[in-house]
Amino acid sequence: MKTNPGNYFEDFQAGAKLVHAVPRTITEGDQSLYVGLTGDRFPLHCSAEFARSLGYRRETVNDLLTFHMVFGKTVNDVSLNAVANLGYAGVRFLEPVYPGDTVRSVTEVLGKKENKSGENGVVWVRSTGTNQRGAKVLEFYRWVMVNKRDPKTPTGANDNPVVPREVAPEELVVPAGLSLDGYEPWASGGRAWFEDYAKGEKIDHVDGMTLEESEHQIATRLYQNTAKVHFDQFQAEKTRFKRRLVYGGHIISLVRSLSFNGLENTLAILAWNGGAHANPTFAGDTLYAWTEVLDSAELPGRSDVGALRLRLVGVKNLDLRAEPFPLKVEKDGKSVYHPNVVLDLDHWVLMPRRR
Amino acid sequence: MKTNPGNYFEDFQAGAKLVHAVPRTITEGDQSLYVGLTGDRFPLHCSAEFARSLGYRRETVNDLLTFHMVFGKTVNDVSLNAVANLGYAGVRFLEPVYPGDTVRSVTEVLGKKENKSGENGVVWVRSTGTNQRGAKVLEFYRWVMVNKRDPKTPTGANDNPVVPREVAPEELVVPAGLSLDGYEPWASGGRAWFEDYAKGEKIDHVDGMTLEESEHQIATRLYQNTAKVHFDQFQAEKTRFKRRLVYGGHIISLVRSLSFNGLENTLAILAWNGGAHANPTFAGDTLYAWTEVLDSAELPGRSDVGALRLRLVGVKNLDLRAEPFPLKVEKDGKSVYHPNVVLDLDHWVLMPRRR
Amino acid sequence: MKTNPGNYFEDFQAGAKLVHAVPRTITEGDQSLYVGLTGDRFPLHCSAEFARSLGYRRETVNDLLTFHMVFGKTVNDVSLNAVANLGYAGVRFLEPVYPGDTVRSVTEVLGKKENKSGENGVVWVRSTGTNQRGAKVLEFYRWVMVNKRDPKTPTGANDNPVVPREVAPEELVVPAGLSLDGYEPWASGGRAWFEDYAKGEKIDHVDGMTLEESEHQIATRLYQNTAKVHFDQFQAEKTRFKRRLVYGGHIISLVRSLSFNGLENTLAILAWNGGAHANPTFAGDTLYAWTEVLDSAELPGRSDVGALRLRLVGVKNLDLRAEPFPLKVEKDGKSVYHPNVVLDLDHWVLMPRRR
Repeated sequence: MKTNPGNYFEDFQAGAKLVHAVPRTITEGDQSLYVGLTGDRFPLHCSAEFARSLGYRRETVNDLLTFHMVFGKTVNDVSLNAVANLGYAGVRFLEPVYPGDTVRSVTEVLGKKENKSGENGVVWVRSTGTNQRGAKVLEFYRWVMVNKRDPKTPTGANDNPVVPREVAPEELVVPAGLSLDGYEPWASGGRAWFEDYAKGEKIDHVDGMTLEESEHQIATRLYQNTAKVHFDQFQAEKTRFKRRLVYGGHIISLVRSLSFNGLENTLAILAWNGGAHANPTFAGDTLYAWTEVLDSAELPGRSDVGALRLRLVGVKNLDLRAEPFPLKVEKDGKSVYHPNVVLDLDHWVLMPRRR
Repeated sequence: MKTNPGNYFEDFQAGAKLVHAVPRTITEGDQSLYVGLTGDRFPLHCSAEFARSLGYRRETVNDLLTFHMVFGKTVNDVSLNAVANLGYAGVRFLEPVYPGDTVRSVTEVLGKKENKSGENGVVWVRSTGTNQRGAKVLEFYRWVMVNKRDPKTPTGANDNPVVPREVAPEELVVPAGLSLDGYEPWASGGRAWFEDYAKGEKIDHVDGMTLEESEHQIATRLYQNTAKVHFDQFQAEKTRFKRRLVYGGHIISLVRSLSFNGLENTLAILAWNGGAHANPTFAGDTLYAWTEVLDSAELPGRSDVGALRLRLVGVKNLDLRAEPFPLKVEKDGKSVYHPNVVLDLDHWVLMPRRR
Repeated sequence: MKTNPGNYFEDFQAGAKLVHAVPRTITEGDQSLYVGLTGDRFPLHCSAEFARSLGYRRETVNDLLTFHMVFGKTVNDVSLNAVANLGYAGVRFLEPVYPGDTVRSVTEVLGKKENKSGENGVVWVRSTGTNQRGAKVLEFYRWVMVNKRDPKTPTGANDNPVVPREVAPEELVVPAGLSLDGYEPWASGGRAWFEDYAKGEKIDHVDGMTLEESEHQIATRLYQNTAKVHFDQFQAEKTRFKRRLVYGGHIISLVRSLSFNGLENTLAILAWNGGAHANPTFAGDTLYAWTEVLDSAELPGRSDVGALRLRLVGVKNLDLRAEPFPLKVEKDGKSVYHPNVVLDLDHWVLMPRRR
């Protein structure tokens, strides 16, 4: 067979390295489409002048665009036969990516554990994105439930690999050469700084965005993510949802773009501790966002910037200001996400200090 | 509150300068998206070779794309609480913008006048777009009706600032270094020149374009215009129209792209005297365009180009060739725009002379 | 009349050269949009590093994007009054196009033949795309049925110009400087090579793609193809289909992108022998693709690459794996394409040999 059937549970071997196809030169064109599709306004990605004033060579690629590009390549080998994306951990952004850089992805299999049903199992992997100079730009852990090729033959796989529970502040990487000396606050328009965000504080990001089929399709194709569920309405009509599913990563991008209103001075995403796509999203849904400040941390050797640990929550089709809104509800005796929650992302961002 | 509540009527002070957030490096990516979203074909923006043959460094950014980028930034500070965009005047394009240039926007408040109702008032401003060398690329006057924060407390504001009624030919700026010596007519395909357009002449631009939700959303996000009415269907359903409104500036772009057919040799928009978004536009509407030649003018020191004053009219969902079509109709004893008219733009363009 | 009425049958004269308007600098922005709209993953167009490793200056423009750009320009002069696109032949890709190159199009009229009805006739043309250095990048033959301006006056036109029946292997142009010495197979992820594709073999490309109105409109505008049937829903409602038609070339692009899964190592399209848009496509249709290997050929002086002659078939709204599927069916005693077939493209591709 010449077409790619994807890997099944049996195909994954701990220690194996999967080198993913289609290296990608990220360009100004990708940047523009990203702005057009998500509404990104963080000035570090929009203005070469602003970026240079902070010590960068030019405007940088939005961390999430890099993530989608690196992640997209892994789908074909890791999750084409996945039943579910169970989780992310230890997502760390390690070096700025510039337009013109070429990224590639490699995944190391960490271990796997067959499920009791015998039909599938969990596979743990660590994926790495690398630029054309061989420098790591991104690293993340991920675990997915993957179908077995042969449900009748037990594999005995019973690994339980360690993945990071969270990224500690000392593991966060501040871009080399970053200098806040020339930071001009008008560029972001933000009025709040590291010191102004208090643990426990919640920020309602106010704005809303309605999602269209062609928008998520164009985005997901741009990321060269080939998961069939996002593109094929003819097959989707036979599924439970009868709809194309929106790529969860694109939801992260949209919700993060909405969060600009209230987090304007954020310079970069440093890491995700973990994230959940709480419920699926479809074309026609309108997204809103709020952020809870979970923690803050000093960064070694830096008096000009600090790290904020934020919980970014995306919800849909619901007026956040009209009604009390529980993040979790009880269903069949279990605590589950409210059905209108679509994203719960625990992450660290880089934030300038008040000067 | 960390999110931006926008400015209310009370917040505007004559003489105040608002420095708008998010400087933007306009790139080849923005150019391509602009072509994909509007169908722009004016060769000065499409071909580096053609542009160089006229003395430009390379292809230039479409004047309207520059306008949307500069205008988009002002929304957050000027019109987030606007009830209505009342008018534009004195819109002048002052210097070519090239891919790679970074534009920023500043707005000066000219004055304000409270309405009799006490609920809102008119604010007059002049906004300026500047490139990374500090050169002005665009200037425009605008007046908007803005809500008061506190309708019960009169402000007494009763200014009546002067805005230009029209841009006089001697205020039009021809790009420095423009030379028509190497102009090759095949590049535009146009067969008509400055001398061929007669005052009073009307040109039916023939082509039509149907607008989709994702198209206007992608465009308006590309321009980083954050007005909520363009993006949030969940909230829109509670409004009179029950629909997302299309950003009026994107309508200008679409109608102008349609006008290429009949105005092919146009080199640039020099200025708008004024413009009206006569009626709202929604996804699914099909746009058509016609131009009326209002006037023509010599340009000081130029024998190779002249200025044409044009009235560009956009209409929707109506066969211009099938029925007589009045621009204005009577409604409740007043003369108002025909309900299918969506744009009436009085502007000056730069047109080569016959050689 | 200042607007372009297009050429009628009477206007075409054998030997005439039509120099088409709007030269176009193809940019990184166009590349990104092409990926976003079609899902292109062939690494030669995605990665500057991969391209350089094969002797190219940088990533190249997808051959089909070049085709659409060159073809789009011809519409205004050749097929604005066309009743039908009857066929293509001798489409040859002659030189790589890079982002930054500016292409222009010229068409030579080869001959014409009036139809018996007197209402229209067939016009044969050869179009050429040229870059800014004057080098031909693309050449193709095409014949279209064009309306007469005056159906009552016979023209007597009765030419029967020769067009190539197929492109012989020795007419295929391998890009100068191509070297396979540094070819790294991980970049495409493909496991099959020239020797692995057997004559008669069929490859089901598995993936499906549902098409949206805004996607084909953005693509067709990007190509600056002005055919009205793709854009104007208000007029389309009066037609037989009551819908906007999708530009057939965009279908070729989508189907070819689907074919990456199974043809990953393909380096370039060398030529089309012929192609048919078997049935129209509309928004909402889901496309699938399969390839039949028609032939293979050695390439003079090359031991590292060969040419495969492929039949690429696009179908819609049909499960290729669920039911036997005839390419042609009988209708009114004639063999016609199955109504779900949308594309049948006979073409040559460049494929690395196993090493």
